[in-house]
Amino acid sequence: AEDGIRDLVRSRGLGDVYKRQLKDTPRIKDEVYNNNIVIIDIQKLKLDKITFERVMKDLKDVARDVNGDIIGIGDQRYVVITPTSVKISREKIGGGN
Amino acid sequence: AEDGIRDLVRSRGLGDVYKRQLKDTPRIKDEVYNNNIVIIDIQKLKLDKITFERVMKDLKDVARDVNGDIIGIGDQRYVVITPTSVKISREKIGGGN
Repeated sequence: AEDGIRDLVRSRGLGDVYKRQLKDTPRIKDEVYNNNIVIIDIQKLKLDKITFERVMKDLKDVARDVNGDIIGIGDQRYVVITPTSVKISREKIGGGN
Repeated sequence: AEDGIRDLVRSRGLGDVYKRQLKDTPRIKDEVYNNNIVIIDIQKLKLDKITFERVMKDLKDVARDVNGDIIGIGDQRYVVITPTSVKISREKIGGGN
């Protein structure tokens, strides 16, 4: 479409997960840009593969942009994204899972 | 017992979870004292209620000592503990579960 508004209307046909994720992603990015770490439950998001991949690409871009970090935890149920200069150690203390 | 060594030997009779947790807790505390955030999978620890409560009390004391924070996430499968001045927002962005 020629403008954003028309695209927004068109997206009404899509599922709840899709719409919620499109709505929440800017908030998540804002938090990271404001130097906060965000833990994201992606269980429901994964039900919609295309949206999942789009959101994950978006979050990875943010992590790289700010020189932060991003990792999946809990059998990939959660994603942790960190702001500028906050790096995530991949080391596991103890037995792991 | 009169000395620590004897207590250590005596603890050999206890389960793996107990021994591992006793071994890992100082490492977790060190990380927090070194200004790191630690995400702890407590699923196995919860199998031993007494040790679980002891470790949780210990971690809560550390969080309070350093003026950090501690919270359970993922249906209480994980505990996040933060170092000095790092506070955890309880706000959930989006639907949650």
